[in-house]
Amino acid sequence: MALSLSSSAASPEITGSTTLCAILADPVHHLRAPQAFNALMGQWNKDAVLVPMHVAPDQLGAVISGLRQTKNLAGFLVTIPHKSAVIDYCDVASARASAVGAVNVVRREADGRLVGEILDGIGFVEGLRQNGIEPNGMSVFLAGAGGAANAIAFGLAEAGIKSLGIWNRTRSKSGDLRERLRGLYPQLPVRIATNDPGDADLVVNATSLGLRDGDPPPLDLERLQARQIVAEIIMDPVMTPLLLAAEVRECRISLGAPMLDCQLALMADFLGIGR
Amino acid sequence: MALSLSSSAASPEITGSTTLCAILADPVHHLRAPQAFNALMGQWNKDAVLVPMHVAPDQLGAVISGLRQTKNLAGFLVTIPHKSAVIDYCDVASARASAVGAVNVVRREADGRLVGEILDGIGFVEGLRQNGIEPNGMSVFLAGAGGAANAIAFGLAEAGIKSLGIWNRTRSKSGDLRERLRGLYPQLPVRIATNDPGDADLVVNATSLGLRDGDPPPLDLERLQARQIVAEIIMDPVMTPLLLAAEVRECRISLGAPMLDCQLALMADFLGIGR
Repeated sequence: MALSLSSSAASPEITGSTTLCAILADPVHHLRAPQAFNALMGQWNKDAVLVPMHVAPDQLGAVISGLRQTKNLAGFLVTIPHKSAVIDYCDVASARASAVGAVNVVRREADGRLVGEILDGIGFVEGLRQNGIEPNGMSVFLAGAGGAANAIAFGLAEAGIKSLGIWNRTRSKSGDLRERLRGLYPQLPVRIATNDPGDADLVVNATSLGLRDGDPPPLDLERLQARQIVAEIIMDPVMTPLLLAAEVRECRISLGAPMLDCQLALMADFLGIGR
Repeated sequence: MALSLSSSAASPEITGSTTLCAILADPVHHLRAPQAFNALMGQWNKDAVLVPMHVAPDQLGAVISGLRQTKNLAGFLVTIPHKSAVIDYCDVASARASAVGAVNVVRREADGRLVGEILDGIGFVEGLRQNGIEPNGMSVFLAGAGGAANAIAFGLAEAGIKSLGIWNRTRSKSGDLRERLRGLYPQLPVRIATNDPGDADLVVNATSLGLRDGDPPPLDLERLQARQIVAEIIMDPVMTPLLLAAEVRECRISLGAPMLDCQLALMADFLGIGR
């Protein structure tokens, strides 16, 4: 997984034989996946291209119905805000995606069936490890209970964290996530938290707050402590207000990009465009 | 229009801000538009990309409904076999497209409305002229009465040809085309022809026959005469069985590619990605 995914200045040439992949998002301007995925295709010498598709939540069904019927489409990636919604459009979802309740990659079979999987929990943990951070045994504070937060919670649980606190403005979603975790990880202590990260070893933002100028902070920045590690899933801006506040408080930080880089190769494999 | 559209080895980098364009076709492997359009975008320094979408005729509606809801889509090109069918999915069609009964480019407005236009008749005539062939005053034999043939017939009529013979296996379609031509060009003599090109000055293949190995010839190749000019719309293979037979008979030939090259700039302008 230790791939160098620095973006090249150009994508491989697109022809009528090129395999199509898409990424569904709203907004799209901040995406890094097209550059990084297409650079990977170039490295692997694959004739495939990933393009952004800007889709509003209420139009997801129409767009997915069209992609299902596009015969040269290998599949599509899914990101904010569609990860939870897209699972309902899949004909099959992996056990992991079903447990998380979200997908971030969907493969189109030759007959048009859609198979959903989620790889960002695995990618997040792998990104921490490449950064020298081993989550095993840590207490974790998680901001968010949406698709990405669910995937990360399951990835961290699988990695053997000691305990988990979940903060989300809609408390019922935190409770839903706790219930799902109990099904697969009954020994893991999970509590519904406030926006105070307390003394958790690892503080994770898994919300989209910080993506747009003027977003409120995803948690109470005043409570961050120097001994804490603060990890972000947002990639653009690279330094979110959360990460800037964490630096001021001398926390160790972990950027959003490694999670993506670590899972693009897994996604390409899943889409059948593997090495 | 004298653009150099030689394909570059790579497409401009695709990011989340890239404007998406598609080309709907079945099959797709033979397409030249992705390479040529993307090279043009590179020349013009535009952040836009054209990708192939392989769509079967019975799935056109689903795919177009999805594209209509894709907010970063400027529009899509339409080629064989969809040119006639797609006009029914447009909210607005130009007067030219309505007369021809087909579209080959569709612009997506910001509100999702689809506006259809046809530019291949203009492109075909312009391609002949770049090749030193002026159709004004010529008698023309046209093989085909589908979307491309309709567009070319109107383009040639506009250019001032002397007479037109239309050969199509389904005679009723030839009659339909003659009726539509009469509406706009009542002075032009139009007859329903057999597969014999007779003594027409210009012989045009506007069918898809020659695209696939083993296709029957689009007209009676034995009847070609050395004084005739034979023009093809198929671009891959460059030398179709029709063009090879025409060369044997020492006819002057005109390849399929210039028609595409001449209209890509017009299409980009129409999609709002102009110079």
